[in-house]
Amino acid sequence: MTDLVARLRAGLPADAVLTDPGVARSYANDMASFCAAGSPAVVVLPRTVEQVQHVMRTATALRVPVVPQGARTGLSGAANASDGCVVLSLVKMDRIVEINAVDRIAIVEPGVINAVLSRAVAEQGLYYPPDPSSWEECTIGGNIGTASGGLCCVKYGVTAEYVLGLEVVLADGRLLSTGRRTAKGVAGYDLTRLFVGSEGTLGIVVRAVLALRPAPPEQLALAAEFPSTAAACAAVCTIMERGHAPALLELMDRTSVRAVNALTHMGLPESTEALLLAAFDTPDPSADLAVVGQICTEAGATEVVPADDAAESELLLQARRQTLPALEAIRPATMIDDVCVPRSRLADMIDGTAAIADKYDLTIGVCAHAGDGNTHPVVCFDAADPDESRRARESFDEIMALGLELGGTITGEHGVGVLKKEWLARELGPVGVELQRGIKSVFDPLGLLNPGKLF
Amino acid sequence: MTDLVARLRAGLPADAVLTDPGVARSYANDMASFCAAGSPAVVVLPRTVEQVQHVMRTATALRVPVVPQGARTGLSGAANASDGCVVLSLVKMDRIVEINAVDRIAIVEPGVINAVLSRAVAEQGLYYPPDPSSWEECTIGGNIGTASGGLCCVKYGVTAEYVLGLEVVLADGRLLSTGRRTAKGVAGYDLTRLFVGSEGTLGIVVRAVLALRPAPPEQLALAAEFPSTAAACAAVCTIMERGHAPALLELMDRTSVRAVNALTHMGLPESTEALLLAAFDTPDPSADLAVVGQICTEAGATEVVPADDAAESELLLQARRQTLPALEAIRPATMIDDVCVPRSRLADMIDGTAAIADKYDLTIGVCAHAGDGNTHPVVCFDAADPDESRRARESFDEIMALGLELGGTITGEHGVGVLKKEWLARELGPVGVELQRGIKSVFDPLGLLNPGKLF
Repeated sequence: MTDLVARLRAGLPADAVLTDPGVARSYANDMASFCAAGSPAVVVLPRTVEQVQHVMRTATALRVPVVPQGARTGLSGAANASDGCVVLSLVKMDRIVEINAVDRIAIVEPGVINAVLSRAVAEQGLYYPPDPSSWEECTIGGNIGTASGGLCCVKYGVTAEYVLGLEVVLADGRLLSTGRRTAKGVAGYDLTRLFVGSEGTLGIVVRAVLALRPAPPEQLALAAEFPSTAAACAAVCTIMERGHAPALLELMDRTSVRAVNALTHMGLPESTEALLLAAFDTPDPSADLAVVGQICTEAGATEVVPADDAAESELLLQARRQTLPALEAIRPATMIDDVCVPRSRLADMIDGTAAIADKYDLTIGVCAHAGDGNTHPVVCFDAADPDESRRARESFDEIMALGLELGGTITGEHGVGVLKKEWLARELGPVGVELQRGIKSVFDPLGLLNPGKLF
Repeated sequence: MTDLVARLRAGLPADAVLTDPGVARSYANDMASFCAAGSPAVVVLPRTVEQVQHVMRTATALRVPVVPQGARTGLSGAANASDGCVVLSLVKMDRIVEINAVDRIAIVEPGVINAVLSRAVAEQGLYYPPDPSSWEECTIGGNIGTASGGLCCVKYGVTAEYVLGLEVVLADGRLLSTGRRTAKGVAGYDLTRLFVGSEGTLGIVVRAVLALRPAPPEQLALAAEFPSTAAACAAVCTIMERGHAPALLELMDRTSVRAVNALTHMGLPESTEALLLAAFDTPDPSADLAVVGQICTEAGATEVVPADDAAESELLLQARRQTLPALEAIRPATMIDDVCVPRSRLADMIDGTAAIADKYDLTIGVCAHAGDGNTHPVVCFDAADPDESRRARESFDEIMALGLELGGTITGEHGVGVLKKEWLARELGPVGVELQRGIKSVFDPLGLLNPGKLF
């Protein structure tokens, strides 16, 4: 038994320290392709703040890197292990500490699963909006670390907007409180927000105060078929320009539509170039859908299908939810990109991505959180074919270059991790990188927290 | 002419460098009481980013402190000059660069006045919510520096939630871009948010990308009279607990009501212990007001007066808007506190403040953004009376101590500045202060930017 393991065991229950190499290897990766991962020395599963502090004190004393993990559903390699590291899995810290309807907050540990929290607050007539597509598995801690988004963002914003305060174990084991449990607060620099999206590189989030909203009325959706991406994106722009507030506004390109049909036999219209899905959770969603349907028709939609009730809405949204699995079935491997552009440039982004697919002779399906201009081009390839893999990686990068050229960002909601770290430098520029590295040194002077991520 | 002035003049137009001691002195203070201010060596009023860079390069070369200023309407001394400093006033950089209804953003220079922007976006059917009470004078740059709030926050949140990206001149004159002009983005640490509320201690904001919303329907308001603070606060809690979304929810205590009557002869009900004002900008505000009026009655309101139209609403809201001037008329000087507590503790905060007023034999009127739990106790005193001044300062501090005890923060929206810097350390604790100082050193290693503020 190594010194590391012995010292970890001194402050952790026996079942919280996993050393079997096969077990440890199973904690090596999140769900990203093309991301290097090392072999952890040990996996720890603490259940208390004190145990997390013990892990960090031990790691600091022995100068061992620590990789924090939630459910490892991330798409950028941010949770990938490095060789000889301690994997610090927070999944056993999964208590909902408090739900308060008057203050509209929840206080949770990091391992609480997004869907578990969502259901618990719904029982009290409340709503925790962030809904990444992995919401049945992913944890709140992971959502905070990666600043997750989801379908709801066009109306309700991203995870960052729901994190009011944090408790964080620092690299040296000290405990930091940030933020507040009040509705407002401006006492000092906003450290809370600094941790959101920091991918475990600044500290270990062990508790979070989250803002909640009142539960909205049930959604009602419509689907609209368009003869071109440009027409669908023009409808998106008009919907937003006229001040509508859809609870989701999603676009699927023709490749995505056909893939979903192939997987599910849903019978979506294969002749459509772009399928737009809009939903409203307003007091009178039918009225909103009627107006938005009219905008779609005026923009050139060949068919507009509004749902009559929640069950029909759910059927329409299934198409969108099946897009990723459907595209993943086309070739043995996929890479999912996450470029977000100003919504006025959405058509340029999607059409440009189609041109990149042609250039590299690849299938790239695009689904998009259209209302936010956030596209998810899914590059389909065979990892066993070196040339196809090279083309996949190059096209993936070219999509990010296009996004930056259109005034966008390389990542709307999936984060940087290992996958996009060269690209982060390109987006931030040298001054931005220098300052970000400076901040990293303030919180983690020994560079032990999730090394090799972000920068 | 000093070397400093000569070097500043080399890169600035003649009328952008003010050296007259009387003129310079007029830039020494913002609107806070009890805050030390020094004499600036020179005041500069740049019109371009390059000119700001020249100022910062010069200041760094000569190791001269720089105090950035907007309209100096702040309430914490954050814009107060220090001896021998360069006052860097951004008020001449007042261009609205772009308003984009499709992307729902505005791009502005820091000297744009809040009301000017609000009116400009309203002309395009858009809405910039943050509405500090100084909105007719204060600048967007100042709002960003102090993370301003306002009446709208209970529904629309604070300034921080509307800042998507920034251009910032650093202490050494280099230009930094942060954030994005897209709806979403998670590329690296959130430097944008770090600047919001940093009170000019990290860099000089020279451009901002702001999020806009669709213009809401016109507000309709009601006023409700309560026989006790506890009853009014119980109504506030029930309104929020049941999921209502008032566009404002304000409370005035008896002292405030009487002060407003004395100033304006409005004829507000002097027997009321707490006057609650609620407004809705929903599609059917009358219906919402009816429900909320019923909640008020059930909580013990002795009278509920809903407005029939926008003009009547405006009359009701005038009472709230006149509260500060009215309290300021009671004694020669005032200090306005800004404690924010969880809304479930609002009654404890307001009653506790009344007890503090009794203890120190002072008049302290309280108005509150009740829906946010954000109280503004206004301590009225005579600065020429040393004993009364001492009691004013002590009561002001005791109010903050009470706020912290109730799980709140020392500042919901006015910031720390000079006024509350000892209290910031108390709220953050030593670990928080150490990290915040570390961040400050990364951005401003020479300590030239707004020295003596925050810490």
